[in-house]
Amino acid sequence: MLARLSEDLSTALERDPAARTRLEVALTYPGVHALWAHRVAHCLHPRHPLLARVVAAAARALTGVDVHPAAEIGRRVFIDHAVGVVIGETAVVGDDVTLFHGVTLGGLGHTPGRRHPVVGERVLIGAGATLLGPITVGDDARVGANSVVLEDVPAGATVVGSPARVVRTAPAAGDGGRRLG
Amino acid sequence: MLARLSEDLSTALERDPAARTRLEVALTYPGVHALWAHRVAHCLHPRHPLLARVVAAAARALTGVDVHPAAEIGRRVFIDHAVGVVIGETAVVGDDVTLFHGVTLGGLGHTPGRRHPVVGERVLIGAGATLLGPITVGDDARVGANSVVLEDVPAGATVVGSPARVVRTAPAAGDGGRRLG
Amino acid sequence: MLARLSEDLSTALERDPAARTRLEVALTYPGVHALWAHRVAHCLHPRHPLLARVVAAAARALTGVDVHPAAEIGRRVFIDHAVGVVIGETAVVGDDVTLFHGVTLGGLGHTPGRRHPVVGERVLIGAGATLLGPITVGDDARVGANSVVLEDVPAGATVVGSPARVVRTAPAAGDGGRRLG
Repeated sequence: MLARLSEDLSTALERDPAARTRLEVALTYPGVHALWAHRVAHCLHPRHPLLARVVAAAARALTGVDVHPAAEIGRRVFIDHAVGVVIGETAVVGDDVTLFHGVTLGGLGHTPGRRHPVVGERVLIGAGATLLGPITVGDDARVGANSVVLEDVPAGATVVGSPARVVRTAPAAGDGGRRLG
Repeated sequence: MLARLSEDLSTALERDPAARTRLEVALTYPGVHALWAHRVAHCLHPRHPLLARVVAAAARALTGVDVHPAAEIGRRVFIDHAVGVVIGETAVVGDDVTLFHGVTLGGLGHTPGRRHPVVGERVLIGAGATLLGPITVGDDARVGANSVVLEDVPAGATVVGSPARVVRTAPAAGDGGRRLG
Repeated sequence: MLARLSEDLSTALERDPAARTRLEVALTYPGVHALWAHRVAHCLHPRHPLLARVVAAAARALTGVDVHPAAEIGRRVFIDHAVGVVIGETAVVGDDVTLFHGVTLGGLGHTPGRRHPVVGERVLIGAGATLLGPITVGDDARVGANSVVLEDVPAGATVVGSPARVVRTAPAAGDGGRRLG
């Protein structure tokens, strides 16, 4: 458990050039706090769904991040700036994903079964992007800021716009495009 | 008064597939809390405008929803996820409207008279949509996520994009398109 | 110092048609509170960077505005509605700028040196606009709501869309276009 908390701090330090120390991240990064609260809520959810939602609501009031307790969030996920992020009940977020503030992984109706996106590993989703419905975002994909994504995104592709379209089919080399928000 | 509170809980239960019980909604739905606070602020506003804004500001700090006390909000309105919603002083929201997080009903200048949108009944406004100026959104219209709406929207139409354009002129049958965020 | 606080109140009164009294602004405007907290954090930052970030994080939890303590913010800046505004570490905001809620002045990578936008004087940035990278926004420019700006904006120009393009090269006369969110 402590190892996981430590891993979260390392992840933020590695991905945010403005982060300086583990103590700074632990005290002041709302995206990290939101993930910690989500782990507690996610553990509580199967047996104590109401208590899980109360934990999530308290975390939401403090951090501005609204994650349903049932959502599945991978390891080394980083939510930068955090305010306005909404992750729905049946969403899945893979390992090593970076989400910026204002990202929505939302639903599109009362359809039975999965209603929210499945996001692969190492995906980067820019600020304000809205992904809706039971779509799949492939590993290493990138989603531009303020995009509206209503269809599957191929692995490694970069999509932008509203509705989002593919503007690049393979990930760019180097680190220059690692941040979209 | 208690009947209205109960109606708000029923509305959330009906429109959010993730909602399970009235107690869960009452304790954990910030959009419901924001509406309750707005009712108090709206009542106080004619005689005690400063106190009304203090109530609205406190609600905003807790819920992330910024509703001016003078705004007119109808019955059975549902604000889902809620964070980042801004509703201006002269805005009107009709009965049975659904707003997702990040929706703005904002102004475009210091013009005298109405400065904000009038939203008809049963309208659905997707996450992150920004509606600006004294425009009218007709009954049963739908506004896509992250749209920017600067002109009137006809009744029953669906608009998307920036600036928003009409992509469908009549509401879709069934429930499949009920959620846009 | 008190003169600066008073100037902030006057700025809000002048630019928001819904503002009535200085007391109302002082008590209920989160954008004003965020600027006050930023002044404290900015002063603390050179010698006490951790304490500065703790102040910024507390202000962020209350106001929904995430300003890095190192960001340089000019005089008579007004942040309206405020929730969801993110201003990065190396961003510069000129005098007399108006920002609406949901505006991002963000980074695009781990490049050395400046990573965030420089915004000139009297610029107006609409709700939900996302400006990314070490770009420059010229004096008197306007950025439309929900735009995504990845390149420099000429002085006096109006840009809209995603990616943003210039739709007007000189500022409009009068006050009619002063608000974009």
